[in-house]
Amino acid sequence: MNTVDPYYSRVVCLAGGVGGARLADGLARVLPPHNLTVIVNTGDDFRHLGLTICPDLDTVMYTVGDVANDETGWGRAGESWRTMSEVGRLGGPDWFSLGDLDLATHLARAHGLDAGQTLTAVTGRLCAGFGIGPAVLPMSDLPAPTLIETDTGEVLPFQVWFVRERWQPAVRRVILPEDVRATAEVVRALETADLVLIAPSNPFVSIEPILNVYPIRAMIEDVPRAVVAVSPIIAGRAVKGPAAKMMAEMGLEPAAAAVAGYYGHLIDGFVYDAQDAGMIAEDGLALLCTDTLMSGAAGRERLAREVLAFAAELME
Amino acid sequence: MNTVDPYYSRVVCLAGGVGGARLADGLARVLPPHNLTVIVNTGDDFRHLGLTICPDLDTVMYTVGDVANDETGWGRAGESWRTMSEVGRLGGPDWFSLGDLDLATHLARAHGLDAGQTLTAVTGRLCAGFGIGPAVLPMSDLPAPTLIETDTGEVLPFQVWFVRERWQPAVRRVILPEDVRATAEVVRALETADLVLIAPSNPFVSIEPILNVYPIRAMIEDVPRAVVAVSPIIAGRAVKGPAAKMMAEMGLEPAAAAVAGYYGHLIDGFVYDAQDAGMIAEDGLALLCTDTLMSGAAGRERLAREVLAFAAELME
Repeated sequence: MNTVDPYYSRVVCLAGGVGGARLADGLARVLPPHNLTVIVNTGDDFRHLGLTICPDLDTVMYTVGDVANDETGWGRAGESWRTMSEVGRLGGPDWFSLGDLDLATHLARAHGLDAGQTLTAVTGRLCAGFGIGPAVLPMSDLPAPTLIETDTGEVLPFQVWFVRERWQPAVRRVILPEDVRATAEVVRALETADLVLIAPSNPFVSIEPILNVYPIRAMIEDVPRAVVAVSPIIAGRAVKGPAAKMMAEMGLEPAAAAVAGYYGHLIDGFVYDAQDAGMIAEDGLALLCTDTLMSGAAGRERLAREVLAFAAELME
Repeated sequence: MNTVDPYYSRVVCLAGGVGGARLADGLARVLPPHNLTVIVNTGDDFRHLGLTICPDLDTVMYTVGDVANDETGWGRAGESWRTMSEVGRLGGPDWFSLGDLDLATHLARAHGLDAGQTLTAVTGRLCAGFGIGPAVLPMSDLPAPTLIETDTGEVLPFQVWFVRERWQPAVRRVILPEDVRATAEVVRALETADLVLIAPSNPFVSIEPILNVYPIRAMIEDVPRAVVAVSPIIAGRAVKGPAAKMMAEMGLEPAAAAVAGYYGHLIDGFVYDAQDAGMIAEDGLALLCTDTLMSGAAGRERLAREVLAFAAELME
């Protein structure tokens, strides 16, 4: 019955942090490298200690490059902290932890940006250094900072809210920049995509910032084949991070169904966890109920295969 | 006979790299902190890996702060190289070695500069972090890059010539920027100075870049008391670095006497090494012949005391 081979389709995956990185890694393990493009949220990017830090790009690179610290969900495995300890001792800010290995990424990136290279080009070189085959693309080469308005009306840069304030201040709304344009590389990937996957990343601060970049949302609406999202919410909770807490604060039920509802007509298929079995779909939305928690490399690969098989049916 | 107490005089020391840092350290060990200001060459400063690197400021801070690597003459004691190894592995430039501890200085500096602080203010905070009492001032808050024109006519940024090319290309001339202004802090220190010491640093690429900053040379010519230089050349050779080689290439005899001649009427006194005993002074130039090689902290302190005593006689 399944005549479309998803392994020969051109797949674009929209990804934020940990969940996105893990699905991207699973896809990278099963797809030919030239058939996969990962478009990564850069709304979290910020300048720190004079460097441009790109937390989601780094999490994707480290995870797909197999050098990530899987316990923390950020940073590198086998990390050390000699430089940051000294920065703290010298009176510099140390609330955002940059390990000695991680710093190498930021310095190599700074070198390229300082020389006038685009973030896309610099990311490509870093990916080569990490032995990554698929294209990992920032959603834009322009700064597109996500801001968080808290319930006290205070507006915080994303990382200040997320890391320094440990995402505790309640969120009134997420403020995204206007008039940010996607790169030519992103546009080209979407033009030729057979399938767009929305990774199990935070819909509000990981995926929406990508969709907000012109013309990404419009191009995804135009994708001739399938758009499939994977729920980041399992049994009412986020696997990691503030997604469920934010949903409650923003008046949404923290449930997989609410994520599907949030994406609405943008998606053709929705993958949700077996713990939420029995979810009722909106008209016309195809559902796949499976184990969405990606345990280890095998778990990522399994979910990637299942999502691709599910999408293939939608692409018929 | 000696009625001027140099320990109650306001001393300004012009310093470049290692030799300057060591004399500055000796002075810091014997003078009350508020009586010593070290004005440091920033002509060697450059951007690298997105960071502002200030080699001479760092050498002075590390030496006076007692964290310097005395064997290499640059960088910190007990240094490690985890980040730089990874930068190299990622394809970044690794010809300029930045250790893990050293990087903390550059990151803390970048943090301050990024926040709009002056290099003078940032340096003050770093000095506080290193427990340094005397004022260590960059000669200017503005970029003032020294360029090296080689005998092939190629013009190289200083650090490219000095570190990457290991100062091997022969020097035709040193190119200094026009219209660089000293900071208010530098001007104030020179206005109130009783004694200006020119450290045993390279006259062409360490001291001349400082004198080139308006109005430093004119203010030193106007110092009401003494100006004393210490020879960086001992027995025809530089203790460290390219001074002697440059003198030969620029048509000067690599000798202490030629250094005195180069400073000319700017100085009232000249300190040279016992290995060059018998040097004949120009009219009116006072000479002190002593051991100018500063072995260890004791050697630095000894030379500082001898130079101050010699200067006191000139200040009568």
